[in-house]
Amino acid sequence: MKKIQAGVIGASGYAGAELVRLLWNHPMVEVSGISSKSYTGQKISDLYPGFYQICDMVFQDEDSVIAASDVVFASLPHGLSEKLARKCFDADKIFIDLGADFRLDKEEDYAMWYGLDYHDPALHKESVYGLPELFRDDIKGKKIIGNPGCYPTSVALGLAPIMKAKLADCKHIIIDSKSGTTGSGKSLSEATHFPRCNESFAPYKIASHRHTPEIEQTLSRLCDEDVLINFTPHLLPINRGIISTMYVDLKETMKVEELHVLYEQFYANEQFVRVLPLGKTADLKYIKYSNYCDVSIHLDERSNRAIIVSAIDNMVKGAAGQAIQNMNILFDLDEGMGLKMVAPSF
Amino acid sequence: MKKIQAGVIGASGYAGAELVRLLWNHPMVEVSGISSKSYTGQKISDLYPGFYQICDMVFQDEDSVIAASDVVFASLPHGLSEKLARKCFDADKIFIDLGADFRLDKEEDYAMWYGLDYHDPALHKESVYGLPELFRDDIKGKKIIGNPGCYPTSVALGLAPIMKAKLADCKHIIIDSKSGTTGSGKSLSEATHFPRCNESFAPYKIASHRHTPEIEQTLSRLCDEDVLINFTPHLLPINRGIISTMYVDLKETMKVEELHVLYEQFYANEQFVRVLPLGKTADLKYIKYSNYCDVSIHLDERSNRAIIVSAIDNMVKGAAGQAIQNMNILFDLDEGMGLKMVAPSF
Amino acid sequence: MKKIQAGVIGASGYAGAELVRLLWNHPMVEVSGISSKSYTGQKISDLYPGFYQICDMVFQDEDSVIAASDVVFASLPHGLSEKLARKCFDADKIFIDLGADFRLDKEEDYAMWYGLDYHDPALHKESVYGLPELFRDDIKGKKIIGNPGCYPTSVALGLAPIMKAKLADCKHIIIDSKSGTTGSGKSLSEATHFPRCNESFAPYKIASHRHTPEIEQTLSRLCDEDVLINFTPHLLPINRGIISTMYVDLKETMKVEELHVLYEQFYANEQFVRVLPLGKTADLKYIKYSNYCDVSIHLDERSNRAIIVSAIDNMVKGAAGQAIQNMNILFDLDEGMGLKMVAPSF
Amino acid sequence: MKKIQAGVIGASGYAGAELVRLLWNHPMVEVSGISSKSYTGQKISDLYPGFYQICDMVFQDEDSVIAASDVVFASLPHGLSEKLARKCFDADKIFIDLGADFRLDKEEDYAMWYGLDYHDPALHKESVYGLPELFRDDIKGKKIIGNPGCYPTSVALGLAPIMKAKLADCKHIIIDSKSGTTGSGKSLSEATHFPRCNESFAPYKIASHRHTPEIEQTLSRLCDEDVLINFTPHLLPINRGIISTMYVDLKETMKVEELHVLYEQFYANEQFVRVLPLGKTADLKYIKYSNYCDVSIHLDERSNRAIIVSAIDNMVKGAAGQAIQNMNILFDLDEGMGLKMVAPSF
Repeated sequence: MKKIQAGVIGASGYAGAELVRLLWNHPMVEVSGISSKSYTGQKISDLYPGFYQICDMVFQDEDSVIAASDVVFASLPHGLSEKLARKCFDADKIFIDLGADFRLDKEEDYAMWYGLDYHDPALHKESVYGLPELFRDDIKGKKIIGNPGCYPTSVALGLAPIMKAKLADCKHIIIDSKSGTTGSGKSLSEATHFPRCNESFAPYKIASHRHTPEIEQTLSRLCDEDVLINFTPHLLPINRGIISTMYVDLKETMKVEELHVLYEQFYANEQFVRVLPLGKTADLKYIKYSNYCDVSIHLDERSNRAIIVSAIDNMVKGAAGQAIQNMNILFDLDEGMGLKMVAPSF
Repeated sequence: MKKIQAGVIGASGYAGAELVRLLWNHPMVEVSGISSKSYTGQKISDLYPGFYQICDMVFQDEDSVIAASDVVFASLPHGLSEKLARKCFDADKIFIDLGADFRLDKEEDYAMWYGLDYHDPALHKESVYGLPELFRDDIKGKKIIGNPGCYPTSVALGLAPIMKAKLADCKHIIIDSKSGTTGSGKSLSEATHFPRCNESFAPYKIASHRHTPEIEQTLSRLCDEDVLINFTPHLLPINRGIISTMYVDLKETMKVEELHVLYEQFYANEQFVRVLPLGKTADLKYIKYSNYCDVSIHLDERSNRAIIVSAIDNMVKGAAGQAIQNMNILFDLDEGMGLKMVAPSF
Repeated sequence: MKKIQAGVIGASGYAGAELVRLLWNHPMVEVSGISSKSYTGQKISDLYPGFYQICDMVFQDEDSVIAASDVVFASLPHGLSEKLARKCFDADKIFIDLGADFRLDKEEDYAMWYGLDYHDPALHKESVYGLPELFRDDIKGKKIIGNPGCYPTSVALGLAPIMKAKLADCKHIIIDSKSGTTGSGKSLSEATHFPRCNESFAPYKIASHRHTPEIEQTLSRLCDEDVLINFTPHLLPINRGIISTMYVDLKETMKVEELHVLYEQFYANEQFVRVLPLGKTADLKYIKYSNYCDVSIHLDERSNRAIIVSAIDNMVKGAAGQAIQNMNILFDLDEGMGLKMVAPSF
Repeated sequence: MKKIQAGVIGASGYAGAELVRLLWNHPMVEVSGISSKSYTGQKISDLYPGFYQICDMVFQDEDSVIAASDVVFASLPHGLSEKLARKCFDADKIFIDLGADFRLDKEEDYAMWYGLDYHDPALHKESVYGLPELFRDDIKGKKIIGNPGCYPTSVALGLAPIMKAKLADCKHIIIDSKSGTTGSGKSLSEATHFPRCNESFAPYKIASHRHTPEIEQTLSRLCDEDVLINFTPHLLPINRGIISTMYVDLKETMKVEELHVLYEQFYANEQFVRVLPLGKTADLKYIKYSNYCDVSIHLDERSNRAIIVSAIDNMVKGAAGQAIQNMNILFDLDEGMGLKMVAPSF
């Protein structure tokens, strides 16, 4: 069988480079080209020496990459993906966007939180929000995929069963998330200067992070009601992984065992979501460098509040891995192909 | 003026050793003796080489330490302090307990959460909960001090103004706390084995941590109403510091500026609580190795929910530093004496 | 083609668990059984939750594992492998020992550094030191493999070209190595207690580490002369990886370019040893979680001293990965099968 | 007694800010002014929130700082200190330079390693290399102090006894040093980007670091012979501290006990150099945030090579602390005043 020709635009960034790394070992994929605005002409192995002598591909311009590819992954700052998506769409190639441009259904949400308008609104009708475990059937057959954000992936997978079952008081959902530093990418910043970041910890963008509307959109869609959350991200002084600790007031009194059964049934057929046994707690340690999402279920009987903990690797299930999962769906491959790495536990 | 003779019982543990370190540089204190059950006869500098050639004191038995001291600090597992407190009380010495035995007002709370009864209930009437910023007047003149727990200190200082002003919906207070590893002390454990703990992150003891009743007791006392919280501690792969991110539903609509003014006024005369300017966020980086508590004020206007972030060093303001602050009060010294270290910002 | 049945003895330790993780994704291997003295009857996924729902195998006794296997990997404290090797040898199964029992050629070296005698000296004649890049031809056809130690692998690969070319002054070789904490394994210890280890750094076992005779044995064999080294290991507060910085007085004046050519030629056909371009420096970051060994070449012209830096992942190329590489050789598979993971660069 | 008016030029950098932090708690010092080219008009507490509400001084221009000060500390990139030193010298103020401009005796060394000439050669005759433990008598009465580099301090204190006793083979001294990231300062760089630096380790500037001539100058001066070293710095993924592991071929056969006695006698009267007991190893953990230098003594009898390990905090004994030690000497104060912090052992 002919291998899929896969191109990566924005491959010099962290999510782009992670895509190349994972695609490289995918048995049905050949990396057809990589691009980078800032590093055109340089080798990816100069930037990321882990690739040295394995993949010494050179960053090209975007058009060369698109021309050589069946599927194009783009990992770019918001506002830059529409044009590329249009090019790919017109050329009948699949476009998987790891940026924010195709995640929000309503243009007004995008305008409010990202400060930009859509230039090609028709195109957004062709796109789908690519969270396989929740919207797999919608993804099949689409040409443009809005790959979910990292925090929204951790939250949506963590709360989906409870939302779908309409158990949540939709005005009392509090999401306290903590992410490793790769989430803020390759660009240098004060916040990720080592002596500043190391042995530190703090929240940031309290009640104002751009992933808020994306989270609310998915949760609302799942429970058919307007959901209003409080979302607080924190920066962990580690490299990878997101833990979301989520507090949900339940509309009816439940036992933790019932809640656990609900989750186990909801995810019974999913290979990448692991509902942990009661008594265990999700830890990002055990999903790092893998495509798994671990979810643990807790309930405070005193307040009848569910406490759900979910853990993903922000670069894999929260970005590159999920994008490949979407590609596998679109090309009718085993959804987990190339993604079955076991997380090292140490 | 004669120096205060200060003894430390349980000085081989982390809080005990931190006490010795801080007392050593206190201008009005002489360390009169240190004890340790497990290390009697050894030098503190053998366990903690930072002391080498500076303080090479030998661990003695408890009675020798008490006999030589005007004030006795004890840092022991719960259940062991009552007898020592009685000895000190009868000998008219001040007893400052860094353990849990004198923190809870109600014996039934202690029995429920710690699984032990009081053997000397009368003694507890002589004790006081030693959180200077909130209960300074009660502390003066007392002989037995229950030094607050680390998490409870961070929460009480973070929420006191809002509770005192009766602004909180007392059934919707969610406290998501994160602590460095020194909080779990010197004992070896799987959770703090380096390859396990490093680059990991997770909550623990969800809805079941022993600091819960202590937190509720203080908050209830401040607002004169029964408070029911959700408290979730997490283990940060760093050494020191606690961040508590706290979500409080407000009973009336407020602007963040009003809330900020409330906090500034509440703490206007406190040297160790710093209310950060609006727009800043508390970070444990900037209070590490110091006795300061930083508090930042945020408000989500969409949900009218206050989000308060507080940061302390769990070993200083959360343990040894606060104990010395209590000592200073009891001996009529400047409350900050020996505690004015500026936190290194890197 | 029938898959190789591979068993792992001592699979509850770090090297053993890493073997299971890597073997699990090896296309020609089926894990036939795992054993653990301390955890018999428990699942590997209870100890290492990264395996949960992927590999929930139960630890059995050693004999069951051997009976089910074509190849037996053992990762045990020294002194325990001989008996197992004998059992496997007599049953015509391949035995790959990740411990120290089959690494040293001379029984007197083993006796001196490990304090034990051989009980079955004849068996050692059947074994071979399994460092593929240097002794590949000797490995083929053998039944018992002494898999090299982690430090010795980093040193041997780093110095082999210079030793083989007889360029080194064999009395002036100084090896300053630094290893992550997984090297000291799963057992709790003061040195790897998180608050102790984190933000610390120090050498240990100066001039007395047991890997010294193994290093000297290989270097001597390569240059046909008695080599006397100084070897100083240090503990890095990170999880994985070894950097060895090696200082070698050269017997004749050389230019760094000549030395570099020598290395490039020596390793021209090796897939897992990467001689970095001149001007680059080996960094453990770029080999973590991979089977690669990066080597960089430097020369101080003022002293005519070569400075060679080598980097490996102690758990992969320094243990489990190399063991699988040996298995691949013995079973006539592509030597890199199952080991071609690209190291994540972040 | 009137307090010393101390000004800090370049106080927005790490060494400058550390100076302010330490001077702030010095009982005989008043911080008279601070300057910063890039942050004039801003508060130091905006950059380093650890100072908030304790020291909210504003960065001024250099001349204002000099005018207000009895002693001026400067922490600037090389090449910028001469003019300031001249101004201070002519105004009869003491100038303590934490940069490199007054460290090297020979202008040709400075020209070769730093690429600049002296513009005011006469001034250098008035300056002294300020390493108190070795050159205390030369320091007294001087007006311009070249405060030693961080690595050179760790090496000089570690090797002084052996050099002074002329025991070293001066062509076989190898110095393998490892430093925390604060050594590279406040400026953002790829090497100190958190996801790049964390969980990494590597040497840098092999055989070409600018501290090489400074180290050789001091060692040569101590042993009255030309010393040629190999010096390899490495970047540790931690914040603070330097460990230097040093290998010295001895000219005569010695026992480790003799070497140890030599060191104990050499440093018998020093409060900030701690010669550890035989069997102990220096660890940067135990000197962090303090002005102490720990030295441990080892000897490989097989090769008759001494292995000396020294540990300092690069920001304190390696920069700001030592500068204050020099100030104390020049103002006839107790040399340790304001510097007696005990290193926290966790």
